[in-house]
Amino acid sequence: MAKQRKKEGLPPGSIVFTGDQKVDKVLIHYLKYNEEQLEEQSFHSHDNIIFPEAAIEVVDWYDMRGLHNTTLIESLGKSFNIHALILEDIADTNQRPKYEEYEKGNFISIKALFFDKEEVTVKTEQISIYFNQGLLLSFQEDETDIFAAVRQRLELGRGRIRQRGADYLAYALIDNIVDNYYQVINEVEAVIELLEDQLLSDPGNNLKGKIHHLKKELLIIRKSILPLREAISQFAKSDSPFIEDRTTIFVRDIYDHTVQVMDMIETYRDMLNGLQDLYLSEISFKMNQVMQVLAVVTTIFVPISFLAGLYGMNFENIPELKAKNGYFILLAVMLMIVLFLLYYFKRKKWF
Amino acid sequence: MAKQRKKEGLPPGSIVFTGDQKVDKVLIHYLKYNEEQLEEQSFHSHDNIIFPEAAIEVVDWYDMRGLHNTTLIESLGKSFNIHALILEDIADTNQRPKYEEYEKGNFISIKALFFDKEEVTVKTEQISIYFNQGLLLSFQEDETDIFAAVRQRLELGRGRIRQRGADYLAYALIDNIVDNYYQVINEVEAVIELLEDQLLSDPGNNLKGKIHHLKKELLIIRKSILPLREAISQFAKSDSPFIEDRTTIFVRDIYDHTVQVMDMIETYRDMLNGLQDLYLSEISFKMNQVMQVLAVVTTIFVPISFLAGLYGMNFENIPELKAKNGYFILLAVMLMIVLFLLYYFKRKKWF
Amino acid sequence: MAKQRKKEGLPPGSIVFTGDQKVDKVLIHYLKYNEEQLEEQSFHSHDNIIFPEAAIEVVDWYDMRGLHNTTLIESLGKSFNIHALILEDIADTNQRPKYEEYEKGNFISIKALFFDKEEVTVKTEQISIYFNQGLLLSFQEDETDIFAAVRQRLELGRGRIRQRGADYLAYALIDNIVDNYYQVINEVEAVIELLEDQLLSDPGNNLKGKIHHLKKELLIIRKSILPLREAISQFAKSDSPFIEDRTTIFVRDIYDHTVQVMDMIETYRDMLNGLQDLYLSEISFKMNQVMQVLAVVTTIFVPISFLAGLYGMNFENIPELKAKNGYFILLAVMLMIVLFLLYYFKRKKWF
Amino acid sequence: MAKQRKKEGLPPGSIVFTGDQKVDKVLIHYLKYNEEQLEEQSFHSHDNIIFPEAAIEVVDWYDMRGLHNTTLIESLGKSFNIHALILEDIADTNQRPKYEEYEKGNFISIKALFFDKEEVTVKTEQISIYFNQGLLLSFQEDETDIFAAVRQRLELGRGRIRQRGADYLAYALIDNIVDNYYQVINEVEAVIELLEDQLLSDPGNNLKGKIHHLKKELLIIRKSILPLREAISQFAKSDSPFIEDRTTIFVRDIYDHTVQVMDMIETYRDMLNGLQDLYLSEISFKMNQVMQVLAVVTTIFVPISFLAGLYGMNFENIPELKAKNGYFILLAVMLMIVLFLLYYFKRKKWF
Amino acid sequence: MAKQRKKEGLPPGSIVFTGDQKVDKVLIHYLKYNEEQLEEQSFHSHDNIIFPEAAIEVVDWYDMRGLHNTTLIESLGKSFNIHALILEDIADTNQRPKYEEYEKGNFISIKALFFDKEEVTVKTEQISIYFNQGLLLSFQEDETDIFAAVRQRLELGRGRIRQRGADYLAYALIDNIVDNYYQVINEVEAVIELLEDQLLSDPGNNLKGKIHHLKKELLIIRKSILPLREAISQFAKSDSPFIEDRTTIFVRDIYDHTVQVMDMIETYRDMLNGLQDLYLSEISFKMNQVMQVLAVVTTIFVPISFLAGLYGMNFENIPELKAKNGYFILLAVMLMIVLFLLYYFKRKKWF
Repeated sequence: MAKQRKKEGLPPGSIVFTGDQKVDKVLIHYLKYNEEQLEEQSFHSHDNIIFPEAAIEVVDWYDMRGLHNTTLIESLGKSFNIHALILEDIADTNQRPKYEEYEKGNFISIKALFFDKEEVTVKTEQISIYFNQGLLLSFQEDETDIFAAVRQRLELGRGRIRQRGADYLAYALIDNIVDNYYQVINEVEAVIELLEDQLLSDPGNNLKGKIHHLKKELLIIRKSILPLREAISQFAKSDSPFIEDRTTIFVRDIYDHTVQVMDMIETYRDMLNGLQDLYLSEISFKMNQVMQVLAVVTTIFVPISFLAGLYGMNFENIPELKAKNGYFILLAVMLMIVLFLLYYFKRKKWF
Repeated sequence: MAKQRKKEGLPPGSIVFTGDQKVDKVLIHYLKYNEEQLEEQSFHSHDNIIFPEAAIEVVDWYDMRGLHNTTLIESLGKSFNIHALILEDIADTNQRPKYEEYEKGNFISIKALFFDKEEVTVKTEQISIYFNQGLLLSFQEDETDIFAAVRQRLELGRGRIRQRGADYLAYALIDNIVDNYYQVINEVEAVIELLEDQLLSDPGNNLKGKIHHLKKELLIIRKSILPLREAISQFAKSDSPFIEDRTTIFVRDIYDHTVQVMDMIETYRDMLNGLQDLYLSEISFKMNQVMQVLAVVTTIFVPISFLAGLYGMNFENIPELKAKNGYFILLAVMLMIVLFLLYYFKRKKWF
Repeated sequence: MAKQRKKEGLPPGSIVFTGDQKVDKVLIHYLKYNEEQLEEQSFHSHDNIIFPEAAIEVVDWYDMRGLHNTTLIESLGKSFNIHALILEDIADTNQRPKYEEYEKGNFISIKALFFDKEEVTVKTEQISIYFNQGLLLSFQEDETDIFAAVRQRLELGRGRIRQRGADYLAYALIDNIVDNYYQVINEVEAVIELLEDQLLSDPGNNLKGKIHHLKKELLIIRKSILPLREAISQFAKSDSPFIEDRTTIFVRDIYDHTVQVMDMIETYRDMLNGLQDLYLSEISFKMNQVMQVLAVVTTIFVPISFLAGLYGMNFENIPELKAKNGYFILLAVMLMIVLFLLYYFKRKKWF
Repeated sequence: MAKQRKKEGLPPGSIVFTGDQKVDKVLIHYLKYNEEQLEEQSFHSHDNIIFPEAAIEVVDWYDMRGLHNTTLIESLGKSFNIHALILEDIADTNQRPKYEEYEKGNFISIKALFFDKEEVTVKTEQISIYFNQGLLLSFQEDETDIFAAVRQRLELGRGRIRQRGADYLAYALIDNIVDNYYQVINEVEAVIELLEDQLLSDPGNNLKGKIHHLKKELLIIRKSILPLREAISQFAKSDSPFIEDRTTIFVRDIYDHTVQVMDMIETYRDMLNGLQDLYLSEISFKMNQVMQVLAVVTTIFVPISFLAGLYGMNFENIPELKAKNGYFILLAVMLMIVLFLLYYFKRKKWF
Repeated sequence: MAKQRKKEGLPPGSIVFTGDQKVDKVLIHYLKYNEEQLEEQSFHSHDNIIFPEAAIEVVDWYDMRGLHNTTLIESLGKSFNIHALILEDIADTNQRPKYEEYEKGNFISIKALFFDKEEVTVKTEQISIYFNQGLLLSFQEDETDIFAAVRQRLELGRGRIRQRGADYLAYALIDNIVDNYYQVINEVEAVIELLEDQLLSDPGNNLKGKIHHLKKELLIIRKSILPLREAISQFAKSDSPFIEDRTTIFVRDIYDHTVQVMDMIETYRDMLNGLQDLYLSEISFKMNQVMQVLAVVTTIFVPISFLAGLYGMNFENIPELKAKNGYFILLAVMLMIVLFLLYYFKRKKWF
C-alpha cells in the first residue's frame, strides 16, 4: 500500500515519480472545444514539448497517460505556471485524495478503483486533475481510457458539457470516477453474499481467510474514498474564481454520492464483522456438538466396558462367574445402564 | 441493497429508472384543495400528459405510483420547471435520504419501511416529495396507498391540514412515514425479545443465524433512517420561501421522532450484540459442563478398568489371583478409588 | 420499551394516551403560593373542569397524577393556552426527554427512575412540566408523590423557593428527579459489585444471564438520561422570558449532575463489559484445567492398560507369560511409565 | 465509587458532608504573604471562627484539612461571601472535577490521586480551591500535607510565586496535583509491564483477575482526570478579573499535562485490552496443545488396545491364537499401526 | 514510555533533564547563511558560552546535540530571551509533540522515529525547535546527524532554502522528520505482511506474542504522531510575525503528510486486530479438527472394544463362545458397526 517514497531528503517541490512505469512513452490526448467546435489530437510526447498558450473562449483538455517522464511534467509546469508542490503531488502516486486551491488554479487528487473478480482484489489508480479558466490537465499512470464516456459526450455534444467551462469538465471527470465506485461496491457486496451463503451451508477452512482478505481490501477502499469525501466537500464550498456557481450544485451531487458510498462501505465492514462473529459461533457450536457426541459415547460405553473387564479377571474365586445365568443377568444390567444414560442425556438435550 | 446503477457514463441529470417495475401503468392520484373545496381524481397516465398550471389559492397534490415511465417524469419536469438533478434522483430508487433546496422548489427523498413478520425482513420503498408554493408531487414505486390516512384527513377536513399550504402537506406525508417507523421498531423489538427467551431456554443451532440475520436487517433500517435525521434537521432549519414559519415547529417534532427512532435502533444493536455475547457464553458454558462430565466419567472408570485389566492377564504366576478373597478385596479397593475421586471432583465443583 | 403508539394516521396535536391507566380518576394537587402565603388543595378532577386564570404575584402549581383523561388535558390546554403539540407530548408516555420553548411557555419532559431491588429492574415514570410566568403544570402517570420533598420545602418555607417564581419551582422539581438518579446509580453499583464477588468466588451458570440482564437495564437507564443532558443544557442556556437569570446558575448545577450520572453509567457499562470478559476468561481457564486433568489421566492409564490388555490375550505361545517373575517385571515397567509421564506433565505445568 | 448522597430532598445550597470523617478536628493552615513578607499560622478550628477581612496587597491562603464540620464551612462562606452552591460542592466529596466562575470568585474542584503499590489500588482525595483577588481557600478531607512543596517554595521565596497573586497560587496548587498524576501513571505502567512479563512466562489463574482489577482502577483514574481536562481548558481561556494574563500561559501548560496524562491512560487501556486478548490466545493455544496430546495418545493406543482385547476373547475357535507365531505377528502389526499414526500426526504438525 | 519526571515540587520553568545522558559533551553545530554566503562551525560547548546577538539579514542555526547540560540551556535562554517554560520543555524528553507561540519566538516539539528491524522496536528521539526572525535553535538528545540532508541542501544551495528565512528552515527540518515516518511505516507494513504469511502457513506459538508486540509498538508510534497532527495544523494556521505567508503553503503540505501517516497507522491497527481475530479463528478451527479426529476414533473403537471385552469374560456359561463360527460372526458384526459409523461421520462431514 505505501510504496517507498523516493524523495526523502530532497527539497520540497522535487518531482519524483514513485510508482511503477506502466507505459513506454507518455500518451497525451488533447481536446479543445467550445459550444460550436471540437478539435481532438492524440500523440506520444517528446521530452521537451512546448505547450501553446490557452486560447480564450475554448476549453483545453490535456489528458496525460504515464507519469514516469518527470521532465515532461516539469515543462508542463513551466508552460502553464503550475506551483511546484502540485507537480510533486502529480508524480507521487501515493497521494492521499485531496483538493487544493492555488493562486493560478485548483488541484484535485483522486483514486480510481477497479475490482478484480478473479482474485477478489481492489486495484487503485491515482488520477490528478488541475484546472483553471479554460485549461484542464488530467494525469494517470497507465493507458486505460477511463474517461471514454466523458470524451464521447463531448464529441457527441450530448448534455450541457460543451456549453460549460473547465470546472464543469473537472466535475464530469470526477463524477465518472465516483460513478465507478458503485460498481466496485456492488462486486464487494456480491462477494459478501457469497461468503455468507457458504458460511451457512458449510463453514470450511478457507472461509476465515477469505473474510480476512475481504476486510483488508475494504480497508484499502475505505482509505481511498474517506479523504475524498472531505476533498469534494471543499470543492463544493469553494469560492474559487475558476468555479462557476452553476457548477457547484453538481459537485454537491457528487458529494452525496461519496457519502452514500462511504455509508455502504461502513455497512459492509459491519457485515464482515458480523460474518466473522457468525463463523466463530459456528465453529464453537460445531465443536460443542462433537464434544457432546464424544461425551455420550464415552459415558455410555466406559461403565459397561468396565463391567466386562471385571468379569474378564482371572481370580480363582469369583462367585458370579459360576452362576448359570450370570452372563445373561450381566447383559440385562448393562442394558439398563445404557437405557438410563440415554434417558439422562436426552433430558439434558445432549443429542 | 445497492442495485446496479444503470446510469454510468451518462451525463448528469439523465433520468434512468434503477428499480424493478412493479406496476403496469403509472397511477396518478390528483387532489386539489383549499379550505373551502376539495377535488379528487385518479387516472392511469399516458406518456405525454400535459399538466395544467398550478392555480393560485389552492394546493395541487399529484401522487404518482410507479417510476418506470421516465418520459412521464420528464414531461412532469418540463411542466413544473423542476431541476434535472431532482428528476434523476426521483427515478433512481437507491437514493440516500436527503433534503435539498432548489430555486424553484424543495425536494426530499425518504424511505418508507415495512416489516415482514414471516420472514423477519425489512422492505424499503423510496418516497420522493417535491413541493413549492401550492404544488406538491409525491413519487413511489408501487401502488400501495401509504398516504391513505393523510388523504382521509384531507377529505374529512379534520385538523388544520386544509387551512395550510403545500409545505404543511409535505410535513404531513413525512410525518405519516416516520410514524410508521415506530411500528417497524416495535416488531423488531418483539423479535429480539423472542430471541432472548429462546436463548435462555434452549440455545439451539439456528439461533445464531437468526441473531446474525436480524443484525443485518437492523443495518438496513439504520442506513435508511440515519441520513433522514440530518435531512429533517435541514428542513426544520430552512428559511426557504416555500415553508411557512408555523410549519417549522411541526417539522421539529418529526425531527424529535427520527432522533428517538435512531436511539432505539442503536439500543437494539447493543441488545443484539449482547445477545450474541450471551450466546457464546452459553455455548462455552455448556461445553464446559460436557467436558466436566466427560472428564469425571473418564477419570473415575479409567483407573478401575486398568485394575480389572491387570487381573485379566494370563501370567502364570500372579499371586493375588489365588488369594481366596482377592476378588472382594479388589472390589473394595475399586470402591474406595471411586469414592475418593467423587469426593475430589465434588470439592472442585465439577458437578 | 417502545409501546405501541396509538396515534398513527391521526393529525398532529391529537391527544392520545399511550400508557396504561394506573389510576381510576385523575388526582390534581393544587398549590398557590408567594413569599407571604400558601394555599393548598387536593381533589379528583371532573372531566370538564374550568381552571381559574392565574393570579398575578403568586405561583400556581397544578400537579396532575393520571394521564388517561385526555378530555381533561384538552380543557387544561384551552384554559391556559397551551400549544397542541405539547398536549400531545404530555399524553404520550413514550416521549424522549426534551426541552422546548413555545411562545406561551416552556415545556420539559423527563423520566423519573425507580430501581426494584428484588427483580434488579429499572422502572421509568414520565414527568412532564410546563411553566411560564406564575404558572406551573406537572404531569405524571400514577399517584406516587414523587415531589413530596419539594412540597414540604414550600410548606415550611425553607430555602429560597417561596421567594422565587415558577421557573425556580421547575428547577426544584427537576433537581428532585435528578437527585433520585444517584440512588438508582448506587443500587446498580451495588449489584455490579455483588456480581463481581460471585464471579470471583464461583462463576456459576446464571451469572452470565444476570450480567446480560443488568447490561440491558443499563441501556434503558442510559436511554432515559442521555437526552436529558442536552435538554438541561438548552434549559441552562435559554433566554426565555419565563426564566430569571438567577435561576440559570442552579440549572447549570443540574446539568453538572446529569453529566456526572452519565459518566457513571458509561463507567458501569465498561465494568459490565469487563465482567463479561472476565467470565469468559474464567470459563476458558476452567475448561483448560478440566482438559488437562482429562489428558493427564488418559495419557497415564491408556499405555499401561494396553500392556495389561496385551498380556490378557489368549495366544497359546506368549513366552513372557510363562516367566516366573513376568508379572512383577511388568508391574515395574508400568510404574516406570507412570513416573515418567508424571514427570513430563509436571515439567509442562499441566497440574 | 458513588457514595450515598445524603442531600436528597434538601434545598439546593444545603451543605452536607458526604464523605467519611477522617480527622477529629478541622486543621487550618493559614499563610499570608507578599513579595516582602510571609506569615504562617496553623490551628485547629472552633466551630464559629470569625475570619478577618482580606488585607490589600497580600495573599491570604487558608488551607483547610477536614470537611465534616459544615458549620465551619458555612461561617467561612459568610465571612468571604461565597455562593451557597460552592459551599455545597466543597462538602460533597463526590464532585466531578470542574471549574466554575462566580461573581465573587472562581472555584475549581479536582481529585488528587494516590497509588497504593501493595494493593494495586488508586485512592482519590477531593481538593477544592476557591480564589479571588488576594484570597485563596483550599479544602481537603484528611490531614496529609499534599501542598508541602508549594508551601516550601513560598517560605523559601523560590521562583516567582511570592511576586504573584492568588491566581498564580491556585495554578501552583493544581500544578502540584497534576504533577503527581505522573507518578500514579508510572506506577500503573510498572504494574502493566509486570503483568505482561508474567503472562508471557506463565499465564496462571489469577492473572486474569489482576488484569480485570487494573482495568477497573484505570476506569477510576480516567473518571477523575477526564473532566479535569475540560475544567483546566476553561480556566486557561477564562477572562475572569481574578486571573492575570501572565498566569494564563502557565495554566495552558497544565492543560498540556492533563492531555498527555489522558493520552497515556488511553494507551494503558489499549495495552490492558491487548493483554487480555493475549491471555485468551494463550489459554486457547495451550488448550489446543493439550487436546492434541490427548488426541494423539488416544488415537495411537485405542486401535492396538482393541486388537489386544480381540485376542483376549474366549471363543473356542479363534484360529490365530493357535498359530505358533501369532503373538509376534500381532506385535509387529501393532508396531506398524503405531508408526503409521506417528508419521501421520507428524505430518499434520500435531506435536 | 513515561520515565520518571524528576521535577515534581519544583517551581514551573525549572530546567530538569529527564532523559538518559547519551553524549559526553554537548555538540553544537552552528550554521549562518543567507542567499550569498554560508558559514559553518562545529564545537563541543563549555558550560557558560556567550552567544552573539543574531545578525540582521542572515539566518543563525544552532543545532545542539545533547540535553543533559542544563546550565548551557539556561545560558542559551538568557542570550536569546527564551521563555522559561520553553527551556523546561526542551530539557524534558517526555514532551507531547506540540506547537506553541510565545511573544519572542515559536516553539515546536516533535518526535523523530527510528525502526529497529532486528528487535521490531520503534525508538523515539525528541526534537525541539525554537525559531523567530533570523534565529533557529534545534535540540536533540544524541549525536546522530538526522538533519544531514537539510544541511547538505543548505551547503549546496539547492532549492529555495537559502533564499528564505528561519521559518522555512524550521519547515524543512520538520519535513525531514515527517518524511522519515514513511520509512518507519513501510517497515511496520513489511512486518505485518510477514506475520500474515506466517499465520496462513503455520500459526505457531510465538505468533500471538509477535502480534501483541507490534500492536504495542504501533501504540507508541501513534502516541508520537497523533498530537503532531494538531501541532502542525496550528503551525499552518498561525499568523505569527515570524512566519512568512509563502511558507504556510509548505507547512500545509506537511500537515497532509501527517494526516496520511495517521491514516496508515489506523489502517495497520485494524489489520493487526484482523490478524489477531484470524489467529483465534485458526486456533479454534484447528482445535475443532483435532476434536473431530478424537471423537471419530473414540466413537468407532469404543463399541467394538466393548464387544471384545464382553467375550473376554470368564463366565462359565456364555453360549456364543462355544458356537463354531462365533468369532467370525463377531468380526463381521464389528466390521458392520465400523462401516456404519464411518458412513455416519462422513455424512456429518466430520472428516
